[in-house]
Amino acid sequence: MLEGVEFTEGTEREDFVGFKVRPKIIVYPKDENDVVKVVNYARETKTPIVVWGAGTSLSGHLMCEGCILLDVSKYMNKILEINDIDWYARVQPGVNLEFLNKKLMEKGFFFPPDPASFFLCTVGGATANSSGGMRGVKYGTFRDWILALKVVLPNGKIVKVGEPLRKNRGGYDLVHLFVGSEGTLGIITEIWLRITPLPKRKVYTILAYMNSLEDTAETIVELRRKRILPEISEYMDVDVIKALNKHLNANLKESEGGAFIISIEDDYLTEIKEILKGREFIITEEEEAERIYSIRAQAAIALRAESKYMFVEDIVVPVSKLIEAIRKLKEIERKYRIRMPVIAHIGDGNLHPNIMLDDISLAEKIFEEVARIAIELGGSISGEHGIGFQKAKLLAEQIVSHNGEEVLRIMKGIKDLIDPYGIMNPNKYVELAYNTWEKK
Amino acid sequence: MLEGVEFTEGTEREDFVGFKVRPKIIVYPKDENDVVKVVNYARETKTPIVVWGAGTSLSGHLMCEGCILLDVSKYMNKILEINDIDWYARVQPGVNLEFLNKKLMEKGFFFPPDPASFFLCTVGGATANSSGGMRGVKYGTFRDWILALKVVLPNGKIVKVGEPLRKNRGGYDLVHLFVGSEGTLGIITEIWLRITPLPKRKVYTILAYMNSLEDTAETIVELRRKRILPEISEYMDVDVIKALNKHLNANLKESEGGAFIISIEDDYLTEIKEILKGREFIITEEEEAERIYSIRAQAAIALRAESKYMFVEDIVVPVSKLIEAIRKLKEIERKYRIRMPVIAHIGDGNLHPNIMLDDISLAEKIFEEVARIAIELGGSISGEHGIGFQKAKLLAEQIVSHNGEEVLRIMKGIKDLIDPYGIMNPNKYVELAYNTWEKK
Repeated sequence: MLEGVEFTEGTEREDFVGFKVRPKIIVYPKDENDVVKVVNYARETKTPIVVWGAGTSLSGHLMCEGCILLDVSKYMNKILEINDIDWYARVQPGVNLEFLNKKLMEKGFFFPPDPASFFLCTVGGATANSSGGMRGVKYGTFRDWILALKVVLPNGKIVKVGEPLRKNRGGYDLVHLFVGSEGTLGIITEIWLRITPLPKRKVYTILAYMNSLEDTAETIVELRRKRILPEISEYMDVDVIKALNKHLNANLKESEGGAFIISIEDDYLTEIKEILKGREFIITEEEEAERIYSIRAQAAIALRAESKYMFVEDIVVPVSKLIEAIRKLKEIERKYRIRMPVIAHIGDGNLHPNIMLDDISLAEKIFEEVARIAIELGGSISGEHGIGFQKAKLLAEQIVSHNGEEVLRIMKGIKDLIDPYGIMNPNKYVELAYNTWEKK
Repeated sequence: MLEGVEFTEGTEREDFVGFKVRPKIIVYPKDENDVVKVVNYARETKTPIVVWGAGTSLSGHLMCEGCILLDVSKYMNKILEINDIDWYARVQPGVNLEFLNKKLMEKGFFFPPDPASFFLCTVGGATANSSGGMRGVKYGTFRDWILALKVVLPNGKIVKVGEPLRKNRGGYDLVHLFVGSEGTLGIITEIWLRITPLPKRKVYTILAYMNSLEDTAETIVELRRKRILPEISEYMDVDVIKALNKHLNANLKESEGGAFIISIEDDYLTEIKEILKGREFIITEEEEAERIYSIRAQAAIALRAESKYMFVEDIVVPVSKLIEAIRKLKEIERKYRIRMPVIAHIGDGNLHPNIMLDDISLAEKIFEEVARIAIELGGSISGEHGIGFQKAKLLAEQIVSHNGEEVLRIMKGIKDLIDPYGIMNPNKYVELAYNTWEKK
């Protein structure tokens, strides 16, 4: 059945945060026809399929035991077209995001969403996860930039969802159903990404040393009140700065209140200076701005070296609730006497408290308490990392408390409608959330 | 069952383009609890429900015979909240879009999508239809600006889909399923709209008299090649100009090649002047720019007065195929010896050829031929007007030829999953497309 498809016996892999992937076999499809063969084989042998791009997922999306691991990074990694009239790029799922952006920039374009793993991750993985990034505050996440997808469905049929058009009212919007579906509905084999011209305006990046995380949150609220929309607005606390200095020679000031990084178009410069008055800050451009951006992108990597176990949280709260969320995070730190360094896309209320532990036994409890801060404050347990295996139970809690049980039932109904065989990354995400809730 | 719900015996209504709405009763719910009562009544009596906002739909979305017409315009028409920290507006479905934008502007915000009916339509209707508008070329359509919805489902349950957050990975994206669902999945009772600060930059609106529609299409391609993203870029042909002068005293030059309206930020001005060289054009700001914008918005109304029957088309083609599409439209005009004046959001490839007929017998044939131009050229039969009753057969053609039959089956499956009772605006849109295709 797998005739002509390259494969090897499965050997164990580990994703970026250490979740184990233990496949029965690993397949390396050369094209969508190979993918169809694999899907048919999976369906007929009732074997789960998990897709591997670069393994940078953070919430156990790829965890499996005895699955077929479909690795798109080996062959299905090409840019198929960059259309400079219709303003889209058509790519295979295994293409590296940074590589794509380099090619786009040569032509005067860029693709805005920029997960911190942009130099490692694949476009397919980031699409399946609807990833975000630093530019999210202005440009949104992957879901805002995908026009169409080619997908091999669990029944082995090849379909396209959406059209490579900015405007299209051709039926229910299935594109957004597949973006962020974490490999549970089908296998993405081609992606049409909306691209946009490189900004014409001069952009400054300001590195400010703040009084505290609360002080930064208050500054964000002030920016909102003044109707200022930055290009990026990031925060790293002092522990993050120390780790960056130690492991990456970042050469940042180890200021107790942490660092606020904000990029803005030139005509906001006067206002920003006024807002930041009283704090130490430097205004940078070009290479130095790039360096700061790149340091920030590697913050989680530096931090990881600091602790035996690290659990990366990814909660979102409404910006108006940032200060309250931060206070609750501090309470958890005190209660458990742990370090929980914060990296944050603070401008859109997306906080990454990193739970650092020597003793893993407390992990789940703390992890859940942090996530529940978001649920309580009307936020979300995930802004960009997704649900995978790790957050399924919390997803059920969030949906039932914010949206209604019926929403969980509809989501499960959609999973069953499209994957009645239960072969696509099963027992995770929506399905696991539903099953956990049903058992209660 | 309808205890406490205000209703009247049904009297016939007509939508904007003349489709008949012949309800059994018209209900005027005061809140979502009233909506639940109506839905339960509809389900138990197996009566279809159609929602009425302002009746500006263009493709027979509202057509019905013996239905319950649920009119949200009488009571459910409030702005519930404008949140200037979290940057959203929360509204009821019956609120007028222009009224909302006036209130937003007072606070320094705006909501970008601007269907030409903005001064008439309701936010609920435009959400259910995922409407577009002139600002679509830069800002996209309704689907890009809806954060969350409250919905009464066909089973009578009240749910929320999505969260009022810029980033949220809380399960499959159901928001985009309901946006553009044309009343076939549930009844929207509250909408969280993303809002954004009023642009800080100076914007100029240029009115240029072009050599022809093809000339304008070539100019659009040149803009794309030069990586220029305008705020709006519209076209009206000479017949449209004449109708505007006649019925609305527009005072435009009746130039044979038609008029191109382009708004751009100030730093593109030099480039635009260069691109438009050789054509007559005027550069406007503020009141005069507003006047031109408003004239353009009323173009379809002026045109309607010119003919006994008018069918408003709404095709999209890739920008790279604009010139080819225009040539094919001209062939149809010649073949049937008809006038088909063109209004276009030309910058995003969205053309509105208006089929003007004294003899209605040819209508369907011509309408379908025009739509098939879009299908052939890899475009869409609708960019912003939606499918309703009128375009269901064409929707089936588009999906089967571009996306695959299986996509139509999944869409129908979603309809059956959420509305197994078949009471929500039945026998239109996806359901009708599927049924038409199945019968073949």
